[in-house]
Amino acid sequence: MSGQTIKYLLQERDIPTHWINLLPDLPGEPLPPLHPGTLQPVGPDDLAVIFPMSLIAQEVSPEAEIEIPESVREAYKLWRPTPLHRARRFERELDTPAHIYYKYEGTSPAGSHKPNTAVAQAYENAQAGIRRLATETGAGQWGSALAFACSLFGLECEVFMVGSSYDQKPYRRSMMHTWGATVHRSPSELTNAGRANGSHPTGSLGIAISEAVEVAAQREDTNYSLGSVLNHVCLHQTVIGQEAIAQMAMAEEQPDVVIGCVGGGSNFAGLAFPFVRNVLRGGARMRFLAAEPTACPTLTRGAYRYDFGDTAGLTPLMPMYTLGHDFVPPPVHAGGLRYHGDAPMLCGLVRAGVIEARAYAQNDAFAAAVKFARCEGLIPGPEPSHAILAAIEEAEAAREAGEARVILFGLSGHGHFDLSAYDAFLAGGLEDPEFSEADMQAALARLPEVPAIA
Amino acid sequence: MSGQTIKYLLQERDIPTHWINLLPDLPGEPLPPLHPGTLQPVGPDDLAVIFPMSLIAQEVSPEAEIEIPESVREAYKLWRPTPLHRARRFERELDTPAHIYYKYEGTSPAGSHKPNTAVAQAYENAQAGIRRLATETGAGQWGSALAFACSLFGLECEVFMVGSSYDQKPYRRSMMHTWGATVHRSPSELTNAGRANGSHPTGSLGIAISEAVEVAAQREDTNYSLGSVLNHVCLHQTVIGQEAIAQMAMAEEQPDVVIGCVGGGSNFAGLAFPFVRNVLRGGARMRFLAAEPTACPTLTRGAYRYDFGDTAGLTPLMPMYTLGHDFVPPPVHAGGLRYHGDAPMLCGLVRAGVIEARAYAQNDAFAAAVKFARCEGLIPGPEPSHAILAAIEEAEAAREAGEARVILFGLSGHGHFDLSAYDAFLAGGLEDPEFSEADMQAALARLPEVPAIA
Repeated sequence: MSGQTIKYLLQERDIPTHWINLLPDLPGEPLPPLHPGTLQPVGPDDLAVIFPMSLIAQEVSPEAEIEIPESVREAYKLWRPTPLHRARRFERELDTPAHIYYKYEGTSPAGSHKPNTAVAQAYENAQAGIRRLATETGAGQWGSALAFACSLFGLECEVFMVGSSYDQKPYRRSMMHTWGATVHRSPSELTNAGRANGSHPTGSLGIAISEAVEVAAQREDTNYSLGSVLNHVCLHQTVIGQEAIAQMAMAEEQPDVVIGCVGGGSNFAGLAFPFVRNVLRGGARMRFLAAEPTACPTLTRGAYRYDFGDTAGLTPLMPMYTLGHDFVPPPVHAGGLRYHGDAPMLCGLVRAGVIEARAYAQNDAFAAAVKFARCEGLIPGPEPSHAILAAIEEAEAAREAGEARVILFGLSGHGHFDLSAYDAFLAGGLEDPEFSEADMQAALARLPEVPAIA
Repeated sequence: MSGQTIKYLLQERDIPTHWINLLPDLPGEPLPPLHPGTLQPVGPDDLAVIFPMSLIAQEVSPEAEIEIPESVREAYKLWRPTPLHRARRFERELDTPAHIYYKYEGTSPAGSHKPNTAVAQAYENAQAGIRRLATETGAGQWGSALAFACSLFGLECEVFMVGSSYDQKPYRRSMMHTWGATVHRSPSELTNAGRANGSHPTGSLGIAISEAVEVAAQREDTNYSLGSVLNHVCLHQTVIGQEAIAQMAMAEEQPDVVIGCVGGGSNFAGLAFPFVRNVLRGGARMRFLAAEPTACPTLTRGAYRYDFGDTAGLTPLMPMYTLGHDFVPPPVHAGGLRYHGDAPMLCGLVRAGVIEARAYAQNDAFAAAVKFARCEGLIPGPEPSHAILAAIEEAEAAREAGEARVILFGLSGHGHFDLSAYDAFLAGGLEDPEFSEADMQAALARLPEVPAIA
C-alpha cells in the first residue's frame, strides 16, 4: 500500500471564487414558482417580505457564475477546502476494481454541508440591515448551521425546533445555544401558528416552518432562512463540486458516476451540479445517481407536479417531484431525507434523464455505513449512508463488469448525533417503515389545480 | 480581512516519517520505573506480559528519532495531516496584537488526538501476533480511539468502561460498538477485580484499569493498551508538533509560547516536544505552558514523587508530579484531565523549569470555549478549553505589553459529546469543585517508600 495517496487536500487559495449557477444551462425555460394564494407566478416583491433582494436576485439569476463575496469566502476558510478521500480500504473490503472517492463535508463546525449556504445567507441578510434570522429545524442540522453562521455576522438567530426533537435530541439544541441562538420548542406560544397548534404533542416541520415564516413576515428587522430546495441554496453548495473537480484532477481521474443522497436536494446539487454543467456543455459523459430512502421515495415514486414547499401550504408552489405536501413520511433516522418534494432544478434534471434515482431501505443503509466506518474510520450520518450504499452497488457492478470504474460520492456529514440509531441497528432493532402508495395518492389528490403555463 | 490566510494545510507527503523521542535530549539520566511489588527498577521482561516488545523498546529507546512504520503512516492518512488555523476572528474579539494559532486534532475519526497512538499500538500488537487488546476508558475518548484503531488492523478490542459513564454517556459506547469493539460495564463479572468490586455502584477508572490489565495478563493472545503517560505514547503523539512546526514555517512565524492542556500529558507532549527539542538543542527560545484544572492541579500543587500509574497500585511506579494515586479528583466535565499524575518526561521538564504550568477553574474554561466557538465556529472539548483560556491570558498580556506575540495552542478535540456540559454552563448551573489539599496530603502519605536511586 506504500506510497498510495488517500487524501487530496487543496489550499485556501483553491476555495472557489464563484458559485456555479446551473439555471442558464438547463434545457428549456425554467417554470416559475406560483403564489400560494393566487396560484399565479410570484415576483421578487412577493418574496421580499422574508428574503433580502440579493438572495432573490440569486434565486432567478441568468448568470452562469456568481462571485462569492470576500467575507463569505473568508468564513469558508474556517473549514474549507474540505478533503477528498480515496477509500482504498473500503475498495479492498468490497473486492472491487472500482476506484471509490468521497468528498467529506463533516469537517465544518456544524458537521455537515449546511454551513456553505448558512454563511452566505447570514452575510447577505446582515448586508441588507437585517438584525435577526428565523428558521425551523427538525433534528437540528440546519438550525445549528444557521446558528453558527449568525454568530459570525453578528445576527440574532431564532430557531423553531420540532417539539419531539427538542425533547429527545438535546445535543443539537445545545450546539445552537453555544453559538448564541435562541431555540423555541415548536409549537410555541410566540406565534399564531404555534398557538393554533398548541395542543399538538410532538410538533411537526410544517408547524415549525409556519412559525418561523410568521415571525419573519411580521417583524421588520427579521428575515426567514431556508436550508435546501431553493435555487440560491443549491447555488451556494456548488463550492463542494468545484473543489471535487480540482481534487479529482489531482488524482488524475474523472468520475464515471457521481452519487449523493437527496432530501431537499442541496447536498446532491452542491456536489453534482458543477459536473452536470460540464456534461451539459458537451464534456466527458458521466452518470449521476441520487440516493433516497424507500420511506420517502420522492424521485422514484413521486409525481411531477406543482406543490408547496412546506406542509402547511404557506410557501410558493414549485414544479417538482412530490409525494404531496401533507404526506407524512414514516419516521426514519435520516431526518434530513424526510422531505415530500425536492429542489426544482434537481427534479428537472431527473425528468430530463440526466440524473438517475434509486431508493434504499434504512437497515441496508446502516449496514453500508457500519462497513464503511470499519474501513475508513469516519462514522457517517444516516443521510449520506444512502449514498454509501449506492456506491457499494456501483462498485459491485464494476466488479461484475471487470472494469476499474471511478465512483465519487458525497459524505455530507458525520453521525456523531445519530449514534443511538447505530446502536439500535447493531442490536437488530431498527425498523424499515413501509411507504404507503395510497397515502401519497390521497395527498396528491389534495394539490390545487394550477393554471397552464405558457 | 481579504487575502489573509486562516488555515495552513499540509499535503499527505508532509506527514512526518519519524516520531521524535525526547528521551536522549533530556537533561540527566532518566529515572527508571519501579516494580509495584519489589519497588526495584523494572526490566523489559516485567512489561512483556501485557505489552509487545516493540513498544517496550520504544519506551526506553535511546534513539532521537524512530521511524514510523509505513502501515501506521498509511492509517494516519485517513485524517492526517491535521489543519493549523490562525484564529483571526478570535484575535479581533480579544482586541490583541498577538497572533493566535491553533493546531486542531478533532478531525480524526474518534474526534481527538488519541488515535495517533492508538493506531501505532494496534499495529505493533498485530505485528506481534496479538489477537485482542484490552483497555479501560472513562467517558470514552480513549476507548473509542482504540476501537477505531483495532478495526483497521483486524484486532478484537475489549473495553472496560467506568460504570457511571457507561450508564450516562451512551454515545461514546455506541461509537465503540460501531467500530466493532466489545464494551463491558465496569465493574464486570468477567474478572476477579470486577467481581471483588461488584457492589460498587458507579465503578472507577482504577477498577476498570485493573480489569483490563487482568484480562491482558491472563490471556496469551491479549495485550493491554494505555492512552497516555508512558514514553511511547508521548512519542507517537509527536506527529502533531512536527506538523505544527512545518505549518508555522508556512505562516513565516515562530511561536513565542506553546500551550496545551494536560491530563496524562500525551496531548501536551505531542504538540510541544518537537519544539522543546529545538529549544534544548539551542534553537530559538520560546515558552511552554501546561494548562490543567484547579480541580486536579497535578503540576501546580502536586508533589514530585514515585507513584503508581493507576489508582489500584498495579502498575509500575513512575517519577512524576502526583496528587497520590488514590486521590480522587472532584468531578469536572474535562474527564480527560482528571488524572492524579502526569507523564514522567513532562514532569521532568516542569521540574527543570522548561515548562510552566497554570491551573484554571471549570467555569472560566467553559467561558473561554464559548467565546472561541462564537468566533471560530468549532466547539472545543472541555479539556482543550483550558488551553484556550491560557491563550486568552497570553493574548491579554501581549496587549498590555503592546507586543505582537505569537501564541500556539493545541485544540486536541471537539466537544460533540460534551454538549450537556455546555448547556449547564450557559444555564449558570456548572460548579467549580474545590480541590482538597488535605486529601492530597493524606494520599501522598500513603505512597510507599522507594529505595534511593544511584
